[in-house]
Amino acid sequence: MILTVTLNPAIDVTYYLDTLVRNSGLRVDRVLERAGGKGVNVARVAAACGADVCATGLAGGRRGEQLRAGLGIRDEFCSIEGETRQTVNIVETGRTGLPTELREPGPAVTAAEWDRFTDRFSALAAGADVVTMSGSLPPGVPAGAYATLTAVTRSVSTARVIVDTGGEALRLACAAGPDLVKPNEGELLAATSTEGGRLHRVLSGASSLRELGASAVVVSLGRSGSVAVTPDGRWRVSHDALTGGNPVGAGDALVAGLALDAGLPAGALLQAGPGLQAGAGSDWPGALKRASGLAMASVLAASAGEVDPAIAERCAGTIRIRKLT
Amino acid sequence: MILTVTLNPAIDVTYYLDTLVRNSGLRVDRVLERAGGKGVNVARVAAACGADVCATGLAGGRRGEQLRAGLGIRDEFCSIEGETRQTVNIVETGRTGLPTELREPGPAVTAAEWDRFTDRFSALAAGADVVTMSGSLPPGVPAGAYATLTAVTRSVSTARVIVDTGGEALRLACAAGPDLVKPNEGELLAATSTEGGRLHRVLSGASSLRELGASAVVVSLGRSGSVAVTPDGRWRVSHDALTGGNPVGAGDALVAGLALDAGLPAGALLQAGPGLQAGAGSDWPGALKRASGLAMASVLAASAGEVDPAIAERCAGTIRIRKLT
Repeated sequence: MILTVTLNPAIDVTYYLDTLVRNSGLRVDRVLERAGGKGVNVARVAAACGADVCATGLAGGRRGEQLRAGLGIRDEFCSIEGETRQTVNIVETGRTGLPTELREPGPAVTAAEWDRFTDRFSALAAGADVVTMSGSLPPGVPAGAYATLTAVTRSVSTARVIVDTGGEALRLACAAGPDLVKPNEGELLAATSTEGGRLHRVLSGASSLRELGASAVVVSLGRSGSVAVTPDGRWRVSHDALTGGNPVGAGDALVAGLALDAGLPAGALLQAGPGLQAGAGSDWPGALKRASGLAMASVLAASAGEVDPAIAERCAGTIRIRKLT
Repeated sequence: MILTVTLNPAIDVTYYLDTLVRNSGLRVDRVLERAGGKGVNVARVAAACGADVCATGLAGGRRGEQLRAGLGIRDEFCSIEGETRQTVNIVETGRTGLPTELREPGPAVTAAEWDRFTDRFSALAAGADVVTMSGSLPPGVPAGAYATLTAVTRSVSTARVIVDTGGEALRLACAAGPDLVKPNEGELLAATSTEGGRLHRVLSGASSLRELGASAVVVSLGRSGSVAVTPDGRWRVSHDALTGGNPVGAGDALVAGLALDAGLPAGALLQAGPGLQAGAGSDWPGALKRASGLAMASVLAASAGEVDPAIAERCAGTIRIRKLT
């Protein structure tokens, strides 16, 4: 079972309008609302690929109810008193370019609520093959939350742990020895201090996260693909340019793909041995291709977390992997 | 009693962030949520001035409940199946300038829901001294809604009718002969076709609304004050420049002020005779001063619909009124 953790989920609201003109009153042409948050996207993609998935995290208030009602995944969220946040994405239909994304900080979580969650998490992690932890932490949750949950996982199961976050939460999580961390470029550079050209900075930033304790590091680079720094070597992953599409959630699809490969019987990494750090037998190029195919399919899908596995497989065939020396 | 109609209310969400950078992911520093919509602001300002106020309109879903719970006014809203919209205001704390306002179209209203509302409205209007109708119409509500409600009011009471909207809804409402319409400049120019300089266009636009059937027209001009075109003459209203402040809701405070003057025993216009079109006795300059003082106080207040009557009175003393020949 893949257990996805989303401590700060959101109702994702997408506004479609012609042009975002600052300092003016604008009519939104179309509104789309759905349960969101990076971990929820991971859960959806993994479930769409046929995996046994369970979603946990913190949810509260009217939006918390809306989130859980719209999940479509086994729901093991814990209730909190505060109101689950929303994220507003503004898509300009009159021009190309990334959406403008407005992220609320999220509800205040009490110490008692956090304690209740870690108890629930411990019981769930005991039955998991892979645990993914994604996204920012809401106010009140300690910065070491992902480190704590990684340690809890180690104490109750042999599940692989994948962490996708940034900043202090990422640095602290690395120290607890997760199997894989997947920051994006901005999160990586915010958590590490490196100089030089783009690839050099990404590679040395990723290496410094491994030195902190993460076994493997995959850095997503948006439309430029990704870079993997693992115990078995380093790889540059790239793909043909995609025009259009929706990049929101592509990193989550990448995490879902890596979780599938780490946790499913068919996954090459699982077959290779007792962990992502399995060594010579690990098929990193294969795992990165499959996961990157899911990320591409996510860009082509209507919204984050929706992928067509058949399209993902075709996309995976177009991914280029280059081993870095 | 002042009856305020808000057919398309909203939960007003205000996001405070440093700078709105298009095509990027932005963290919101602070979130403020409150019951909103132009008619709700009118109700709040009138109530803050001591008037007997009743709020009606259409509200539905989780946000509808939130709206009604946060109203603080006698609640006579009708429930609908659709979800009440939200309006997102983005305030950039790193620079000056108007907020960027994102307005959702609102929930779809069925014909049966609209029929139920008009029945409820008829019963409420029978006990009203003034009826205000504010804002856009949600999808499904006929463009002639304010015209219909004006006619219903005429059939059940002698209440004055004030309409604050734009476009086709404004043009159709005028034909039903409301006592006063209060478009803003953009709404006026969208509803009429005129040429020439700013004041000339506003005056001839306002005159054309009177020709359609509105007794009096007050056009709010944002930081430039307002213009009134009435059966008793035309006035230009201006005030000292305000630096900073929150202009959202100033037009609603103006409407509340005009409603107070039309409906309260102390109101000069009411004392003058049987309607705003009362003729020679009407104290338009006095009414415009008092209402504009409320609009200024609203700009100085923390959020739309919150005014301090004492501040409004001091502001009113600074308003300049010039009769136009």
